[in-house]
Amino acid sequence: MFASTPPPPYYVVIFTSLRNQYDEVGYEAMAERMLALAQCQAGFLGAESARGSDGLGITVSYWRDEASIQAWRNQLDHLEAQRLGRTRWYERYSLRVAHVERAYEFSPSPV
Amino acid sequence: MFASTPPPPYYVVIFTSLRNQYDEVGYEAMAERMLALAQCQAGFLGAESARGSDGLGITVSYWRDEASIQAWRNQLDHLEAQRLGRTRWYERYSLRVAHVERAYEFSPSPV
Repeated sequence: MFASTPPPPYYVVIFTSLRNQYDEVGYEAMAERMLALAQCQAGFLGAESARGSDGLGITVSYWRDEASIQAWRNQLDHLEAQRLGRTRWYERYSLRVAHVERAYEFSPSPV
Repeated sequence: MFASTPPPPYYVVIFTSLRNQYDEVGYEAMAERMLALAQCQAGFLGAESARGSDGLGITVSYWRDEASIQAWRNQLDHLEAQRLGRTRWYERYSLRVAHVERAYEFSPSPV
């Protein structure tokens, strides 16, 4: 559930979305398939995802460089998923591409 | 729930966390207080947050520049919240600072 990324620098895509209320099954299946496909893409470093009970979800995916993000954006099955997202699944979404400069981890040592 | 940010460039702090199972009330109160305080900080542009039923949460906060992030990190009440987070609330967390280069929005036009 936590992504294990290499030391920065690398890139992140932040996808914030608000789901609509129907086609839960089709959406879940596609979301799982897209994650599996992303994991096969060159330059994919990991992803983290959370959706609250209010329907707002945040998915962050980490990538080696901008070329990897570009290739994923244009992957054919992913293009179809993006189209379905706009027409069927999302009320609204925003997408940001950012360059990760620093990263920290906290995990208490076991006693 | 969606942050209304200005056109890039700006900065984002991505905070991914796994909650432990106790002190829900104290945590919620502090989380609300921290958001209210962050909104008073110079350079704060917005925040988005989601936590799933598995306990994994992602909070992204947007900032004008690195100096704003630094000032927020060293704000006294926030320092205390960070200490409580490490000792009381979080099993684990990761924090990344990134420079937002591009942003897109999707929201279907009303018919």
